[in-house]
Amino acid sequence: MIRVGIINVTGYAGAELARLLYMHPEAKVTSVSGRSAAGKPLAEVFPHLWPLDLKVSNELDDVDFAFSALPHGASAEAVAPLVRKGLPLVDISADFRLSDAAEYQRWYRVTHPAPELLAEAVYGLTELKRPAVREARLVANPGCYPVGALLALAPAVKDGIIEPDVIIDAKSGMSGAGRSLGLSYHYAEANESVVAYAMEGHRHLPEIVQELGRLWSKAEASLRVTFQPHLVPMTRGILTTCYARLADGQAWTKAKVRDLYEGFYKDEPFVRVTAEPPQTKHTWGNNLCLIYPTVDTRAGRLVVVSCIDNLVKGAAGQAIQNMNLMVGFSEATGLDLPAVYP
Amino acid sequence: MIRVGIINVTGYAGAELARLLYMHPEAKVTSVSGRSAAGKPLAEVFPHLWPLDLKVSNELDDVDFAFSALPHGASAEAVAPLVRKGLPLVDISADFRLSDAAEYQRWYRVTHPAPELLAEAVYGLTELKRPAVREARLVANPGCYPVGALLALAPAVKDGIIEPDVIIDAKSGMSGAGRSLGLSYHYAEANESVVAYAMEGHRHLPEIVQELGRLWSKAEASLRVTFQPHLVPMTRGILTTCYARLADGQAWTKAKVRDLYEGFYKDEPFVRVTAEPPQTKHTWGNNLCLIYPTVDTRAGRLVVVSCIDNLVKGAAGQAIQNMNLMVGFSEATGLDLPAVYP
Amino acid sequence: MIRVGIINVTGYAGAELARLLYMHPEAKVTSVSGRSAAGKPLAEVFPHLWPLDLKVSNELDDVDFAFSALPHGASAEAVAPLVRKGLPLVDISADFRLSDAAEYQRWYRVTHPAPELLAEAVYGLTELKRPAVREARLVANPGCYPVGALLALAPAVKDGIIEPDVIIDAKSGMSGAGRSLGLSYHYAEANESVVAYAMEGHRHLPEIVQELGRLWSKAEASLRVTFQPHLVPMTRGILTTCYARLADGQAWTKAKVRDLYEGFYKDEPFVRVTAEPPQTKHTWGNNLCLIYPTVDTRAGRLVVVSCIDNLVKGAAGQAIQNMNLMVGFSEATGLDLPAVYP
Amino acid sequence: MIRVGIINVTGYAGAELARLLYMHPEAKVTSVSGRSAAGKPLAEVFPHLWPLDLKVSNELDDVDFAFSALPHGASAEAVAPLVRKGLPLVDISADFRLSDAAEYQRWYRVTHPAPELLAEAVYGLTELKRPAVREARLVANPGCYPVGALLALAPAVKDGIIEPDVIIDAKSGMSGAGRSLGLSYHYAEANESVVAYAMEGHRHLPEIVQELGRLWSKAEASLRVTFQPHLVPMTRGILTTCYARLADGQAWTKAKVRDLYEGFYKDEPFVRVTAEPPQTKHTWGNNLCLIYPTVDTRAGRLVVVSCIDNLVKGAAGQAIQNMNLMVGFSEATGLDLPAVYP
Repeated sequence: MIRVGIINVTGYAGAELARLLYMHPEAKVTSVSGRSAAGKPLAEVFPHLWPLDLKVSNELDDVDFAFSALPHGASAEAVAPLVRKGLPLVDISADFRLSDAAEYQRWYRVTHPAPELLAEAVYGLTELKRPAVREARLVANPGCYPVGALLALAPAVKDGIIEPDVIIDAKSGMSGAGRSLGLSYHYAEANESVVAYAMEGHRHLPEIVQELGRLWSKAEASLRVTFQPHLVPMTRGILTTCYARLADGQAWTKAKVRDLYEGFYKDEPFVRVTAEPPQTKHTWGNNLCLIYPTVDTRAGRLVVVSCIDNLVKGAAGQAIQNMNLMVGFSEATGLDLPAVYP
Repeated sequence: MIRVGIINVTGYAGAELARLLYMHPEAKVTSVSGRSAAGKPLAEVFPHLWPLDLKVSNELDDVDFAFSALPHGASAEAVAPLVRKGLPLVDISADFRLSDAAEYQRWYRVTHPAPELLAEAVYGLTELKRPAVREARLVANPGCYPVGALLALAPAVKDGIIEPDVIIDAKSGMSGAGRSLGLSYHYAEANESVVAYAMEGHRHLPEIVQELGRLWSKAEASLRVTFQPHLVPMTRGILTTCYARLADGQAWTKAKVRDLYEGFYKDEPFVRVTAEPPQTKHTWGNNLCLIYPTVDTRAGRLVVVSCIDNLVKGAAGQAIQNMNLMVGFSEATGLDLPAVYP
Repeated sequence: MIRVGIINVTGYAGAELARLLYMHPEAKVTSVSGRSAAGKPLAEVFPHLWPLDLKVSNELDDVDFAFSALPHGASAEAVAPLVRKGLPLVDISADFRLSDAAEYQRWYRVTHPAPELLAEAVYGLTELKRPAVREARLVANPGCYPVGALLALAPAVKDGIIEPDVIIDAKSGMSGAGRSLGLSYHYAEANESVVAYAMEGHRHLPEIVQELGRLWSKAEASLRVTFQPHLVPMTRGILTTCYARLADGQAWTKAKVRDLYEGFYKDEPFVRVTAEPPQTKHTWGNNLCLIYPTVDTRAGRLVVVSCIDNLVKGAAGQAIQNMNLMVGFSEATGLDLPAVYP
Repeated sequence: MIRVGIINVTGYAGAELARLLYMHPEAKVTSVSGRSAAGKPLAEVFPHLWPLDLKVSNELDDVDFAFSALPHGASAEAVAPLVRKGLPLVDISADFRLSDAAEYQRWYRVTHPAPELLAEAVYGLTELKRPAVREARLVANPGCYPVGALLALAPAVKDGIIEPDVIIDAKSGMSGAGRSLGLSYHYAEANESVVAYAMEGHRHLPEIVQELGRLWSKAEASLRVTFQPHLVPMTRGILTTCYARLADGQAWTKAKVRDLYEGFYKDEPFVRVTAEPPQTKHTWGNNLCLIYPTVDTRAGRLVVVSCIDNLVKGAAGQAIQNMNLMVGFSEATGLDLPAVYP
């Protein structure tokens, strides 16, 4: 049983870590920190976490493993000294996702507080980085949108079956925006409404571009990626619809595409290629990514839909999957939970 | 490890039993039946249950314990021969909840198919019937509304602190109506709307009256109970607000009422008296009943709010709690799960 | 055509006034004020109001009639000088609803800024105060909850058919909480959840008690009223369920109660006694109050359900209904709109 | 005042026609038909339509203008004799949208019942077909998805600023599926979930292809269109996100694209090019289409978002807009209504 700490437990990702780790048979949350709620019992901040008899503190106590759920900027600052001391850690913020400190600064408008750690940080989309995650002492947990987009596109991009032109249209529930207040998340404004946002560029774009680029093998053309997120009136879930022209429209039938995807993910504990288009609700509360690839034969286009729970496979569950590997547990430990349906 | 069967797994209560039992360390679902889906893999009917590698059959295979999630009438018919053969069983239908076969017939408009079993069937609201449940071979799982209402009122009724006049105003999510189709549950009709229903009398009323009557000790006056259910636009959850005049308005302060409730429930694993009015979301997906009792001092009235997840503490979770006792497991086995929040 | 001004157009009640008055054939909004948005075009604050070519100003221009949608305290202060100058006005805040300045101070924790106007202010629930509204120069628009509760109970209370003991259980959509931010109204926290609030006493209670008291004729006993509001996950609508024991349980059948209600409301343009229990959605966006009275014969109890749109009959529509009378228009002018369904 | 009939008033489009026409100053619904509800008062079927004192009949009485809201196949059959008799008519079904009877049969799997009327039927997206609508006696009202997609793309396609490769990703509320029952629209299954559907081809695709093709002027390449619809948990509204590579990525800035769109729609009463990305809620209950065009400069791509209420601009409002022109009324008569917000 390892002792686990959660830095900034007071947001949704932090709380979801606490919930999931409560069911983990080999890890126990022994320390949680959070600036705004320091001194309060955790169960006062989040009544659903009442079985965790913990007090929110200013700083983590001594632990064997830590997660940081701090906002970007603050996270790198808090995390760097811990990593240097040798504490294995998954950072859920964006701070260690981009290898290029300049690119980070361009999108997040913050000077990176610990650029010297960027080289060793591993981008923790486990399905694509398993060996590196196993060896890492610092894992950058991917953003929620990139998880859905990258898993939907990886087989096609890696195999080079598409033209270098990709459109990612994502629909997210409101918890993705976090627990801070804003008119856009006010119930009366958000309910019965769909909206596109960040139309001039969302911060998850450079991360998607970086990782798709690493998969893309055709030197002659770099990928052009359009990523457009939307808010839909639900709490959890991201459905991502990806579009790309097939490099050779004739050759790739739906059946062949499905074979490619099924082969790519055949040993994955948390990815399933589904027989029917999935709904986000089929992943409510669990760590699955459901993927449905098909071909629009009229337009010679690959269309892939993926579903995740943004707080689980898109944040806390993905982070625990990384922890399991880093610590040497079986990858699915504590995460083998059916979705809550309906 | 015991082998468990679920009769009629294709409704929401049956599917929720399968989900919860998947996480149970000492019970394993080995057989599921369901008329409409017989022959299909369970994961085809409910994609979220894909880790359960089971085929829906016409009849249960040999098991050590069974749950019936059949509709009333059909359930008693299917269950009676199994009980006679000695199979311990929890019936989730209404068939064995009312001791009086005539009362059953009045409300359900069906001649009881197995009235000879009524005397031995135990009304399975564990918190009020623990010793009997432990000895039972046939437990009638309570209705979802009665769970919320009885737990909210039991301490007050048993202690006789109220006048014999009780109002129960319940607000339920849509999954309470089951998976069958109806215009009232069509998304476009049900969303953005609240409605009162069954205003001439709901079938859960006689069950509430029977059980409150058993708790009520004042011979001089029988309880008059009004129970009014409402549908609200959400999937899971029942919030029940109960009102009753205090027998002696002066004597019962909020603090004294809270003491009574905290004492009554102090050893219960699944009931908590909360410091603030609870929201149904604090029980989303788990087996808790949260209770907040207070006093309207102006009107000399007890007001108690309770929250449950209608599919867990109001159905499948409650049923497993009963199974645990009947089989000799620790009562909370497999049910110690935090709610999924937000 | 009269010129109408709206003080504090930037909240939901103000915006709804602007929407409804746009469709009024004899009144035209010519001036709107709002502190936070002063200087901005109204359509920038509320895109759905783009056809109103108005700029939000600090102070109202010269108008023939005004509505104040300011918060309590601020409203009386702004409104008093206008009323003294002779401008006819409906105040949507709570400032002039309670006749007793001390009671006002007890509940709102503010010294009343213009107590000398309380005597002449008319409580503007038109159905109960029509002659007085017609003569008034200052009308206090009722709270949203009181509209639903008073219309549901008025016939029974006035006729004295119930015992002096009333329970009002109200379920409101989120827009009732206004446009200001709060964790309780954050989409991710409020969706899929029901909660009771203000359990120690809601500010609409004294208003309900005052007005029911004026209808109540039995000197021998004063009314004891319990009012419990709840938030449900929808944007608009209040469903109010009222309970009271019948003074003579035997005598009052459902049919007789319906006769009483139908007689009481037979000439009302905005109240309908419905054949079936109504849903709030049947009043979405319009000025109706739908009422369904019935009798729980087992408990000898009157049960009445009413539905309104909290922003229309519970605020802006009710205010325009009052304006119509004060100005001499036909009462229903501009308000004869079917609900938006589904 | 013209007398208007609605064939099949019992679906959502029919009911919305009745609601909107009630507010029309120059048209009055005098006759409504509907097979399942024949003989019933309209207000019994739709309580929100109580002010319309009409009985649902089997056949329309004599009227000056008719709308058909029948399903495809049935509509052409019912409508053909009326058109031949000279009754001006808007058909809301798909029956007269496709000029090519073979294409119709391919997608709808029905032999067209009145192919001889296809040549004269006008595709009634008023903004693109105003002169023809004015002269038509039979107008085929466009599908809800095509309205949002065509208005979003028309300026770009007509002006030829894009490559012949278009992706349309649409997100629709549940009322688009109509009032018939299905597990996909059951509240408990549909809430808190997003799903892509009709991934092998949706029936609105040929209509979009036909009309975009008519706008497209570049002979050298025909358009390749991918259209992917999604269901989101809300009642009304469609948000459509369109993607296409700019023919000359460098030349088309966001500002120039906005100029093009603003010029194209500058005299349109029901289309607005918005300053910020719109939300569907800004069109709730009214006939507007809100459009926000922008450029993803990184990928050289046009991205356009449009919002409509699927039951108004996507069905009943669009139909009345057509009627207004056909009959010689001012185009916006009776449709000048602000959206209901929040």
